[in-house]
Amino acid sequence: MTSEETTRDGRYATTVRRIDLNADLGESFGIYRYGNDDALMPIITSANIACGFHAGDAATMRASVARALELGLAVGAHIGLPDRLGFGRRNLAISAQDAYDYSVYQIGALEGFVRAAGGRLRHVKPHGALYMMASEQRNLAMGIVRAVADVDRSLAVYALPGSELAIAAAEDGLAVRPEFFVDRPYRGAEVVMFGWSYAELGSPADAVRRVDEMLGSPGFGAIETLCVHSDTDDAPAIAAAVRAALEARADVVLAH
Amino acid sequence: MTSEETTRDGRYATTVRRIDLNADLGESFGIYRYGNDDALMPIITSANIACGFHAGDAATMRASVARALELGLAVGAHIGLPDRLGFGRRNLAISAQDAYDYSVYQIGALEGFVRAAGGRLRHVKPHGALYMMASEQRNLAMGIVRAVADVDRSLAVYALPGSELAIAAAEDGLAVRPEFFVDRPYRGAEVVMFGWSYAELGSPADAVRRVDEMLGSPGFGAIETLCVHSDTDDAPAIAAAVRAALEARADVVLAH
Amino acid sequence: MTSEETTRDGRYATTVRRIDLNADLGESFGIYRYGNDDALMPIITSANIACGFHAGDAATMRASVARALELGLAVGAHIGLPDRLGFGRRNLAISAQDAYDYSVYQIGALEGFVRAAGGRLRHVKPHGALYMMASEQRNLAMGIVRAVADVDRSLAVYALPGSELAIAAAEDGLAVRPEFFVDRPYRGAEVVMFGWSYAELGSPADAVRRVDEMLGSPGFGAIETLCVHSDTDDAPAIAAAVRAALEARADVVLAH
Amino acid sequence: MTSEETTRDGRYATTVRRIDLNADLGESFGIYRYGNDDALMPIITSANIACGFHAGDAATMRASVARALELGLAVGAHIGLPDRLGFGRRNLAISAQDAYDYSVYQIGALEGFVRAAGGRLRHVKPHGALYMMASEQRNLAMGIVRAVADVDRSLAVYALPGSELAIAAAEDGLAVRPEFFVDRPYRGAEVVMFGWSYAELGSPADAVRRVDEMLGSPGFGAIETLCVHSDTDDAPAIAAAVRAALEARADVVLAH
Repeated sequence: MTSEETTRDGRYATTVRRIDLNADLGESFGIYRYGNDDALMPIITSANIACGFHAGDAATMRASVARALELGLAVGAHIGLPDRLGFGRRNLAISAQDAYDYSVYQIGALEGFVRAAGGRLRHVKPHGALYMMASEQRNLAMGIVRAVADVDRSLAVYALPGSELAIAAAEDGLAVRPEFFVDRPYRGAEVVMFGWSYAELGSPADAVRRVDEMLGSPGFGAIETLCVHSDTDDAPAIAAAVRAALEARADVVLAH
Repeated sequence: MTSEETTRDGRYATTVRRIDLNADLGESFGIYRYGNDDALMPIITSANIACGFHAGDAATMRASVARALELGLAVGAHIGLPDRLGFGRRNLAISAQDAYDYSVYQIGALEGFVRAAGGRLRHVKPHGALYMMASEQRNLAMGIVRAVADVDRSLAVYALPGSELAIAAAEDGLAVRPEFFVDRPYRGAEVVMFGWSYAELGSPADAVRRVDEMLGSPGFGAIETLCVHSDTDDAPAIAAAVRAALEARADVVLAH
Repeated sequence: MTSEETTRDGRYATTVRRIDLNADLGESFGIYRYGNDDALMPIITSANIACGFHAGDAATMRASVARALELGLAVGAHIGLPDRLGFGRRNLAISAQDAYDYSVYQIGALEGFVRAAGGRLRHVKPHGALYMMASEQRNLAMGIVRAVADVDRSLAVYALPGSELAIAAAEDGLAVRPEFFVDRPYRGAEVVMFGWSYAELGSPADAVRRVDEMLGSPGFGAIETLCVHSDTDDAPAIAAAVRAALEARADVVLAH
Repeated sequence: MTSEETTRDGRYATTVRRIDLNADLGESFGIYRYGNDDALMPIITSANIACGFHAGDAATMRASVARALELGLAVGAHIGLPDRLGFGRRNLAISAQDAYDYSVYQIGALEGFVRAAGGRLRHVKPHGALYMMASEQRNLAMGIVRAVADVDRSLAVYALPGSELAIAAAEDGLAVRPEFFVDRPYRGAEVVMFGWSYAELGSPADAVRRVDEMLGSPGFGAIETLCVHSDTDDAPAIAAAVRAALEARADVVLAH
């Protein structure tokens, strides 16, 4: 649960940073297939699975949970806005109570599948517009945090470092996993979630370079988990390159 | 959990039958209010709460769970078909896998609210067309039963006595609660679920008479729970009359 | 189609203002009944019927259209956001293209029922959050206006006077019907759509007083249609009182 | 509109059979892309566009209609059951009134887009389970036929030859287009809609062979339109092969 650990290698002790590699998955619906789940899942360490609001459905949730547990991934609830038509990417003026209710519902539904498969739910991450709104609006952040705390205080919350969601979760005593996006451009410490271009994003090697810079930057010292979206072009290649780079580092251990 | 208990009253022991009084509740949606929940809840002993497929929504589930727990009711998941437009009353040709998936999802979602409120989910009951289809189609019954068993084997299954659902649940070792409908006409041992008239249904006194006959009939010896629908005209009056009649009997104890 | 007409009564000509009395109707869904449609429809002159996005469904649309045409009402499409759970009352960050697409879809669907019933669709009015967003956001207003113009240029657009929607419709050459809300408080020329209380709203007599003031105020000189919502408490009494007051005036003719 | 025409080529007259090549299209939804629409549309002569019930959405409808009209295709409403999760492929026990209501709604919605684009709606075809149920259940067939007749009597109805839908449409005086499926196996005159394998379906050349046999068989003398589904593997290759074969025949003219 802590992000730093000390290991002993013969004569000296060195501090190792624990980094999780997560992906947003399980976004298929009915006949519609979506995302690079099959290719991504063997590369990552934690899976955020859509819960039937912005994407996903009961069959997809079951199958995604089964595969994630089979691969030993940490399974999280990727909770979203009730806007399947807009894939949960459009701001919707919900109340804090709505945020609470939608969170409990979706966490519970996914937890049903995790429990049915003999696993344990590990974390919660808001999706799309809900993620951004909860980063900026304290009342929505608190609605989500209260939901997590009421359902299961052992669940970690994935959040932008310094966001209202990260602050609210920490204040409530929940474990927070500050998140970095390997498949989104950054302008300084600011992630560009919308309106970016693939030219700006660059190659898998560019993603690796961003990760290396991030790991060396004190401003990103809190980062514990790296996200790749299953619907980014080349997501598996990006994830694989980042994973290989992380595994090659002596100061990082890749784990949820 | 057993339906019969022995009590000692001075010189003799008498067998007492435990009877539960359940209602289908929490069927409001968005701005739409539905059912006599407020009046019914203080009268019954267990509440079957809609889970957002055929009816209900996250806010209604939260509020219904809170009120039910406050009143000490046993809370169950009233799982339905994904047909809100038809209120889950129209047969839909789903597979056993669909039945499993929809059951896990809905049980999990409701369980989220129950756990968040500090309670414990106690039972599962299919709604409407899913209830009738699971009564007659063994594969659907087995899909539901597997879902209950996988999520939580301690959950009881409410079912028509002798139905495929009751048989499958018993075979799997789950607790079955054979159910009688106090607000539906019976033709012999056969309940008339659809196409009945209020003339045929009669008054609350007629409901009491049906319950008395049922309790005296060996053919209904397995009945453990009595249902009243929250959307039946006079549901609270029917439930209150039945409850009073049960409380007046020395051979019945009203309890989940 | 014009709002002023000249009538001759023996010796002198007087200017008569044509006022339409509209209501938002057809908001039931599936088993859920909503609003005072039956009581309101005989009182009003035009009916804005929900089109299945924020409320309503195909059966409700058919029945509402049939009743409205039977009563000789002008039938309009009450188009809304795709947010049935929130009754279309929550802002949703749609694009102008979305506004266009959702408008064409809903207008077309309702027009299908109107044509099937032998009638003619007469107007379009956005509902709830879409109404308010189109009042303030020029791009959404233009999306809706383009949709109306493309489907049928003879359709009038109901809009807040001076709103972006009213301006965009007028610029496009569409007939605009500036609207006044008889069941909402006003602060000067500003309607209070949300957060008002029934104490603030007052009695039907208060509604009549507001209408009289409005008719005498140059600032409201453009008003051509008065709205009452079918889900306001006492909506039929308010509508009846307003209608009676309008009929008692020599300078107003009540007509679509 | 008739399927046979006489042409004069110098010295002799020959009877030419008019054959339409249709495809089920516009089945994308939100972020989900589905089907081979781009490749298929230049090959076919008529497009059945999903209307937002079993598949499709307003944006997809607009774009599909625009492309179809650009290519000179006849545009039809591909109406389905309100079961997006099941892609309208699961039987749902709707009433004849439901069938009427759902048909009017969907035809109207698509007609809105066709009219907005300056075109004219030409036909109606039920999708999936609705197509099969309307083939077998007279009351549902009549519900659909009444809807078509009420909205626009000039719309043709695509139907299985000899089906209840074909019979009901003909009895009502509507134009019927008996349909043959080039991408489904046949057992004698019976199409195998479900449970077939690609091995059974064979290659594009096998599809051409089936079409040739059909054209030579008196039992299929009524066929006027050939269907290829946009989601069949190799649909564009099948359609192209069939189109080429039809164009090579002197006794067939390819046209809606």
